[in-house]
Amino acid sequence: MPVSTRKIINDPVYGFISITDPLIYKITTHTCYQRLRRIYQMALAHLVYPGAVHTRFHHSLGAYHLMCNALGELSSKGIEITREEEVAAKAAILLHDIGHGPFSHALENILLKGIHHETLSLHIMRLLNEEFGGELQMAIDIFTDKYPKRFLHQLVSGQLDVDRMDYLTRDSFFTGVSEGVIGYDRIIKMMAVKNGELLVEEKGIYSIEKFLVARRLMYWQVYLHKTVLVAEKMLIKIVERVRALGARESSTLLTGTSLDFFLFEFDGKMDEEAIRNFVILDDMDFMHGIKTWSKHPDQVLSVLCQGILDRKLLKIKLQAEPFIKDLVQQKLKQACQRLSLTNEEAGYFVFTGEAVNTMYKTSDERINILFKDGIIKDISQVDNALIHNTLSSTVKKFYICYYE
Amino acid sequence: MPVSTRKIINDPVYGFISITDPLIYKITTHTCYQRLRRIYQMALAHLVYPGAVHTRFHHSLGAYHLMCNALGELSSKGIEITREEEVAAKAAILLHDIGHGPFSHALENILLKGIHHETLSLHIMRLLNEEFGGELQMAIDIFTDKYPKRFLHQLVSGQLDVDRMDYLTRDSFFTGVSEGVIGYDRIIKMMAVKNGELLVEEKGIYSIEKFLVARRLMYWQVYLHKTVLVAEKMLIKIVERVRALGARESSTLLTGTSLDFFLFEFDGKMDEEAIRNFVILDDMDFMHGIKTWSKHPDQVLSVLCQGILDRKLLKIKLQAEPFIKDLVQQKLKQACQRLSLTNEEAGYFVFTGEAVNTMYKTSDERINILFKDGIIKDISQVDNALIHNTLSSTVKKFYICYYE
Amino acid sequence: MPVSTRKIINDPVYGFISITDPLIYKITTHTCYQRLRRIYQMALAHLVYPGAVHTRFHHSLGAYHLMCNALGELSSKGIEITREEEVAAKAAILLHDIGHGPFSHALENILLKGIHHETLSLHIMRLLNEEFGGELQMAIDIFTDKYPKRFLHQLVSGQLDVDRMDYLTRDSFFTGVSEGVIGYDRIIKMMAVKNGELLVEEKGIYSIEKFLVARRLMYWQVYLHKTVLVAEKMLIKIVERVRALGARESSTLLTGTSLDFFLFEFDGKMDEEAIRNFVILDDMDFMHGIKTWSKHPDQVLSVLCQGILDRKLLKIKLQAEPFIKDLVQQKLKQACQRLSLTNEEAGYFVFTGEAVNTMYKTSDERINILFKDGIIKDISQVDNALIHNTLSSTVKKFYICYYE
Amino acid sequence: MPVSTRKIINDPVYGFISITDPLIYKITTHTCYQRLRRIYQMALAHLVYPGAVHTRFHHSLGAYHLMCNALGELSSKGIEITREEEVAAKAAILLHDIGHGPFSHALENILLKGIHHETLSLHIMRLLNEEFGGELQMAIDIFTDKYPKRFLHQLVSGQLDVDRMDYLTRDSFFTGVSEGVIGYDRIIKMMAVKNGELLVEEKGIYSIEKFLVARRLMYWQVYLHKTVLVAEKMLIKIVERVRALGARESSTLLTGTSLDFFLFEFDGKMDEEAIRNFVILDDMDFMHGIKTWSKHPDQVLSVLCQGILDRKLLKIKLQAEPFIKDLVQQKLKQACQRLSLTNEEAGYFVFTGEAVNTMYKTSDERINILFKDGIIKDISQVDNALIHNTLSSTVKKFYICYYE
Repeated sequence: MPVSTRKIINDPVYGFISITDPLIYKITTHTCYQRLRRIYQMALAHLVYPGAVHTRFHHSLGAYHLMCNALGELSSKGIEITREEEVAAKAAILLHDIGHGPFSHALENILLKGIHHETLSLHIMRLLNEEFGGELQMAIDIFTDKYPKRFLHQLVSGQLDVDRMDYLTRDSFFTGVSEGVIGYDRIIKMMAVKNGELLVEEKGIYSIEKFLVARRLMYWQVYLHKTVLVAEKMLIKIVERVRALGARESSTLLTGTSLDFFLFEFDGKMDEEAIRNFVILDDMDFMHGIKTWSKHPDQVLSVLCQGILDRKLLKIKLQAEPFIKDLVQQKLKQACQRLSLTNEEAGYFVFTGEAVNTMYKTSDERINILFKDGIIKDISQVDNALIHNTLSSTVKKFYICYYE
Repeated sequence: MPVSTRKIINDPVYGFISITDPLIYKITTHTCYQRLRRIYQMALAHLVYPGAVHTRFHHSLGAYHLMCNALGELSSKGIEITREEEVAAKAAILLHDIGHGPFSHALENILLKGIHHETLSLHIMRLLNEEFGGELQMAIDIFTDKYPKRFLHQLVSGQLDVDRMDYLTRDSFFTGVSEGVIGYDRIIKMMAVKNGELLVEEKGIYSIEKFLVARRLMYWQVYLHKTVLVAEKMLIKIVERVRALGARESSTLLTGTSLDFFLFEFDGKMDEEAIRNFVILDDMDFMHGIKTWSKHPDQVLSVLCQGILDRKLLKIKLQAEPFIKDLVQQKLKQACQRLSLTNEEAGYFVFTGEAVNTMYKTSDERINILFKDGIIKDISQVDNALIHNTLSSTVKKFYICYYE
Repeated sequence: MPVSTRKIINDPVYGFISITDPLIYKITTHTCYQRLRRIYQMALAHLVYPGAVHTRFHHSLGAYHLMCNALGELSSKGIEITREEEVAAKAAILLHDIGHGPFSHALENILLKGIHHETLSLHIMRLLNEEFGGELQMAIDIFTDKYPKRFLHQLVSGQLDVDRMDYLTRDSFFTGVSEGVIGYDRIIKMMAVKNGELLVEEKGIYSIEKFLVARRLMYWQVYLHKTVLVAEKMLIKIVERVRALGARESSTLLTGTSLDFFLFEFDGKMDEEAIRNFVILDDMDFMHGIKTWSKHPDQVLSVLCQGILDRKLLKIKLQAEPFIKDLVQQKLKQACQRLSLTNEEAGYFVFTGEAVNTMYKTSDERINILFKDGIIKDISQVDNALIHNTLSSTVKKFYICYYE
Repeated sequence: MPVSTRKIINDPVYGFISITDPLIYKITTHTCYQRLRRIYQMALAHLVYPGAVHTRFHHSLGAYHLMCNALGELSSKGIEITREEEVAAKAAILLHDIGHGPFSHALENILLKGIHHETLSLHIMRLLNEEFGGELQMAIDIFTDKYPKRFLHQLVSGQLDVDRMDYLTRDSFFTGVSEGVIGYDRIIKMMAVKNGELLVEEKGIYSIEKFLVARRLMYWQVYLHKTVLVAEKMLIKIVERVRALGARESSTLLTGTSLDFFLFEFDGKMDEEAIRNFVILDDMDFMHGIKTWSKHPDQVLSVLCQGILDRKLLKIKLQAEPFIKDLVQQKLKQACQRLSLTNEEAGYFVFTGEAVNTMYKTSDERINILFKDGIIKDISQVDNALIHNTLSSTVKKFYICYYE
């Protein structure tokens, strides 16, 4: 193989990440993949955890690295994985997040009208597949769970996939929240395959418990941290306000980027024009928008935008019960007074909602444990497991954001 | 203060540990404290985790370091802690493990006839207190929970004491079991005191969950690892055999160390002679015994001892139910045949027992959480806590050890 | 002190960074300081080291943290530091980089016409001082080395300042170049003050050697990495091209940000308008420019800009001798042909220069070592020191960049 | 391969160490290899660095792990390494330290009468080779540099061997001296082979400089730390005293271990009896000796031994020039008075010597750098390298130890 397609990349998390295959190299140097350098992995979490400025680009490389390890481990245990399958699985994980837009989950619903990033990843994978003359077909089959060896898909997207293992490890590393550390190397060492399905050996049980608890901790301490939550809600309010103002007159709101398309033209159909605009859209565009709008004459918009820039965020409260209407009314009234706003305008500063830890749908996800005697059980059915209890239940919290 | 009582000690876990007080310096340079250099923190766990050769000396210093941090944190929050109390609490934690004998928990029950190491620690603290002209009185009061500011005792010995925080952190570090990592610094930052009791602020809840889960994981993966378990049971069998043989004739069994006293003379009364022998007894003596006895003509003794030296351990099986008698009989028969033993002798190679995770007596331990509104709740009563479920129950496993 | 001015910030490098003083809190929440969130610490180094996306915001906090440690250490050694001096030194280090513009050193000379970032830092510190009613005066005196206790200035800016200690540590951490790790905590423990000057105790010599060697390594392996070098040279070419085009007609080049001022209006005088534009300028603006210009009809500009976006960089060669003219001519010719350019246009793709490791001006910098007997020597005069040799000499390399 | 010969071992330094070959498994479970569990890697360095209690057993496993990585890297670069060679090189590194005796280098010269540990390693490797029916022949050939592919020997023992890479990394880890950290993974990634010789690619130069500087730092800061030095000199004095006393009457000095043979019978010839005694000798035996002799009526012996146990060490001074006789006389006189000793006895407490950093014999060692154009140069001949200067010269310091 030509030297130029061999690369070693320094990674503070794993040491070195090696790229040895021409297809993998081609993907990583593609403009679509390079775009991920400009998408924060954790949206605005860096407002709380200043180190959390790592990118989707970096995460995807990390997940690819774990995929290399996992495939190597399974091969060494005698699981047949062809060279082609190996490359395809690696390509699939490299591309799994390629459909993320600006600020990822935070804006997915509003800016992209609810089109899921996996749908967009698939769109882009298909575009690349055409460009690459079909070389990505097997990767797409693995990604969409159509490939017969299901464990390859499960490594890309499943309860114990390398995506989650990397993001927990990496987000924990960059935030400095050491409690999020998981034993990814031990879990990988414990992986097995039976009847084409991914399993974990019995002695890996405690590592998996640890993984699930670390995930839970990262959710409440980081991903759904109340300050992160309020900042991301403010992003949504900004989009709503821009669109509301733009409905009358958009010229003063234009950013000169492809963001304009998604703000004012996009109808939710991912046609050719939408994709063309999407693949050049990134966090930088949205930040430019925020900087631009922070000087806009509309006070609602400028206050929200300047607030993001200066980290002057709305207040937020979380509780187990919904907030009573009276409180909302009172906060609305306050905002109207302090900022001299109409009631409708105050709604951009005072609002309620639910934060749900949607990651725990254990109903449809299983982590299969392989016992020494060959028996397979879901971890929730294992004696003495921590899992079947609290971890499995969805947790919902109610929040109120307001201006003070 | 004279320069000679100021010391900085390199610690791979925390960076640097500083000693700045003359009393602390005096303790750490005392022969009784130096003895802890020769007591493994984790007994025979290094047979499974080769890095786990760190000592009680090192752990006590580490716990002392966390005590310094905790006291500093509480002081900076306005809790009144006098200079004298500060030094006393540090002295108490430095000395908390000074009563550990050879292989600590593994041999406590048999070699020291069940005298708990805390009892011995207190014995030695009192000796030192005399020697130091009463300087340790407040430390003793804190250690025995007689000092009015109870949080000082709770930092030394409680559900969230610095002892546990250090040993989990340190044992995790030296074993390389990264899943045992806890957020000790975050927990310390979240500590508070109300009505003299140690509390944790509300936002520390997830860190405490993490701490409890890490402890659980360390128990099953490390402290009660089946190979560690069987090795430590073999130590007990060695003591039993030495005593049984010595009942007839002990001359060939003598080690020339103070171990001889505890093997053949100690009657369970911690009198002056016993203490005098105890304070010079360490793991080295027991290892010397094992090396000596590995050449003893008694086959039972020599096989057990050589087994420890060469890490040729008995087999062990663990299960949730007791083992049936038939299995035990069959294994005994096997051992008799293979080693040409009498039935009584075979009992040293084939035996059953229970491994209990006794650390979870949550009934009598509380971790009090301080909410923003001033309310205090035990963590098990907090909504959505992981704790009240599986974590609180004692877990028992049955084991059988046998020769093969 | 009101609770709201107390903050604990998670830092993956040091664990936790604490803010306890109202003035410090006021600085960190100021819009000028928040701007540093949008300035990469290492400009485009992340094109080689994907983790190196940390910010000036984060670095300044880190240097502040080390300042807290250093002041604490010196105080504990009996050096008198008043509460006011303590806060002033912390403020000075927090603000030392506040004058960095987009891509820091990479664009300093061209975009800001050579105004040094320290000059700009001082400008902004004076603005803030007015705003804060003089509260920053002592910090400014320390920053400008007018304060009598010179060691405070030396901690902010000197051969062994906390700035360098943080950036080496932090850049090493985020790049994953483990060889850049320095023993910052040990160096701080070894600090002393004599006659108002900062010194290092004798036993810290090896740590300082290590620090200097780590710095050398980071220079060649990271800061002057040839790929980083070429990317940053491309930024300069972009500015040059934009200005050249703008000399005729700038309307198609405008970014709608304060960058426009510095591209087309700034005459090198830091007047009020310039400062007003500067304090809202950041990397995001320049990245927005690059994204905008990547679609510009001028091919020179669009190719350079798209190259940055897609990491399709010019080739670069480094050597100890200057490149011969013939090679430059040949490469220019090649570029003309491949891109259908005029000779003048090709000059944006083919150019030579010198990379100088300017950090080693040991002539005017000293690291004073304090020996046990009270003698003070510069480290370069210490027997057996590594320093006086290669480390002290400036190293220059010649480079050629070209299109292929 | 049977499951029982596959093992995964937790290592805090590298994560996991895998054993997959039956021969390797057989070595690691052999009594001779298990003995290394009872030999400290760093002799008495733990008296200064309490974490430094790791063992030769652990270090050998670590070096084996790096050998696995290095062989994998070279294979992936197209260097032909047969399966048999791979196993042989791994066996050779596993066994390279098997000839270490109690307290390794500290006692090598006196207790073993100067027989080098590599000579002893070879002795034992030959014994094992017989026992294993010749399976170790290729490992022995590699170890003794008789195997044609010289790079395999160079990986075991050379300027950049995996032995040094592991001990620097591991000793740095366990002491907590972070400055000793080297980029072992980067160095391994940069390894190449040409004409059968081990080389390092050009871009690895800075990592090698770093490696050499780290080694220098570890020497002065750790291995030759003055407190470590004095403690190890005391061990030598203990042996000398025991032998001197034993020349008259040895019965009161016997330890009941194979140490007795080396103290009183060994004549420097490594015959069968000597080897038989050697393979069961370890640090535990010597520690037992020290504990025994600490109660011996001879004051010289008991004071030295108790000093080791209680870390009450002699004083030591180091300087570049030899100490003048007058000082020595004065210290001798002092010791005579304070301890009521004869002049001859005082010589055990007051003595001088030279500490030499013998590791820098660069004359006969080379680190070959492979340039992109195929040229090979020794690193000391590379422009701008740090190496040819101070690093290459042997450094000698004079010490005096005395009682106070």
